Amino acid sequence: MKIAVIGAEGDIGKAACCELSRRHRLIKVGRSSGDIIADMTDPASIDAMYARTAPLDAVVVTAGDVHFGALMEFTPAHYMEGLAHKAMGQVNVVLAGLTRLSDNGSFTLTSGVLDRDPIRMGSGAALANGALGGFVVSAAVEMPRGIRINVVSPGLLDVSVARYGDWFPGHEPVSSHRVGLAYARSVEGAGTGKVISVQ
Amino acid sequence: MKIAVIGAEGDIGKAACCELSRRHRLIKVGRSSGDIIADMTDPASIDAMYARTAPLDAVVVTAGDVHFGALMEFTPAHYMEGLAHKAMGQVNVVLAGLTRLSDNGSFTLTSGVLDRDPIRMGSGAALANGALGGFVVSAAVEMPRGIRINVVSPGLLDVSVARYGDWFPGHEPVSSHRVGLAYARSVEGAGTGKVISVQ
Ligand SMILES: NC(=O)c1ccc[n+]([C@@H]2O[C@H](COP(=O)([O-])OP(=O)(O)OC[C@H]3O[C@@H](n4cnc5c(N)ncnc54)[C@H](OP(=O)(O)O)[C@@H]3O)[C@@H](O)[C@H]2O)c1
Ligand SMILES: NC(=O)c1ccc[n+]([C@@H]2O[C@H](COP(=O)([O-])OP(=O)(O)OC[C@H]3O[C@@H](n4cnc5c(N)ncnc54)[C@H](OP(=O)(O)O)[C@@H]3O)[C@@H](O)[C@H]2O)c1
Repeated sequence: MKIAVIGAEGDIGKAACCELSRRHRLIKVGRSSGDIIADMTDPASIDAMYARTAPLDAVVVTAGDVHFGALMEFTPAHYMEGLAHKAMGQVNVVLAGLTRLSDNGSFTLTSGVLDRDPIRMGSGAALANGALGGFVVSAAVEMPRGIRINVVSPGLLDVSVARYGDWFPGHEPVSSHRVGLAYARSVEGAGTGKVISVQ
Repeated sequence: MKIAVIGAEGDIGKAACCELSRRHRLIKVGRSSGDIIADMTDPASIDAMYARTAPLDAVVVTAGDVHFGALMEFTPAHYMEGLAHKAMGQVNVVLAGLTRLSDNGSFTLTSGVLDRDPIRMGSGAALANGALGGFVVSAAVEMPRGIRINVVSPGLLDVSVARYGDWFPGHEPVSSHRVGLAYARSVEGAGTGKVISVQ
């Protein structure tokens, strides 16, 4: 398959690419890294990415920023950051791809553990993650042409412990290998409308 | 308890008020209906509502608009409508109430069935509902002063079948009485960080 991976050079993106590259041709996409530069928060930029990469059999998104901070210090704008970037960025990729992905293709999005196993400072991530879970469950029943959609929801990644570990006391990191398998399950399996948890 | 119910004059709001009014003093809030006029999408308006109603033991929100439409016709702006109104409107009520609600008070929000049991045309609701579920799970672990937070997620209400029934083929409507009980469970019970499904 020919697969675009948006966020391919990030921690999660590398885990997904390591597994998927064994069997597929990957096109790496990022804001400032990868084979193609595109910004998922900008629909015109996403359109240009699809135009350059067509035809695609699958799109994997492993990108999405959210604000981290104490609940008492969160403002509405902080929550909107995650909704506009992590949630709507990924939704934008799906909307623009509905007419462009190959028949029986797939979208695989990325959320994370924080909407089911919360940490302090994580309510912005939880809001965006929950939104993505609800979206894929529902969008799956309306996908055209046999296209599937899932979201991978990884726990704290082993290679990300140095960056984020202090915020996740007692969380057992998940291996990059297992996270990679979850992306393969979504792309190559038959499931749709699933939140694929890796814990 | 003294409880503000935002959206009290709507279908879900009436179900909540019918049960809660047996034991509590309710202040009904709406954009154009109720004892107090306030718009939850406007933080200044929410602040004014808290100032007029203080001290409050609980806040219940049974309001939240989303766009309904076919996935293929959704635009990013359609999704943002539900995120900005239903999700962020309710989050605004919580943020503004964190310092104002009585000790050991509670927030009860409202989502709905569509992020777990999807229908065609419902992906905007599913996105917003999922966001609210993720938010309460996470916000619960950071609530100050013993304050609790839950979200009630009702199926299609019996009294709403005439308005929305055509979109929910084969869905068994839930009784207003049972939906009312879910709000009482959140307000008067001990649970926090729960998505209280009524199916
Ligand atoms: N790391 C973890 O342990 C973990 C666990 C669970 C969930 N997650 C979630 O997984 C996602 C990725 O996390 P990560 O740790 O891998 O992040 P990361 O290392 O910072 O990598 C993010 C990648 O996404 C790209 N990107 C960011 N914004 C973009 C945009 N608007 N358009 C296109 N590409 C964009 C970045 O490209 P440039 O650098 O070129 O901009 C980068 O390659 C996040 O949403 C995170 O919440 C992470
Ligand atoms: N009805 C159902 O079967 C059902 C099932 C599951 C979930 N839900 C969800 O429950 C929520 C309420 O649904 P409903 O059917 O009860 O709606 P509804 O009958 O239209 O009532 C909505 C109520 O909320 C108030 N309201 C709306 N926007 C507001 C705002 N920005 N600020 C303050 N008050 C506002 C309205 O007041 P004004 O009229 O004065 O503006 C009205 O009283 C929705 O989010 C819906 O998705 C409904």
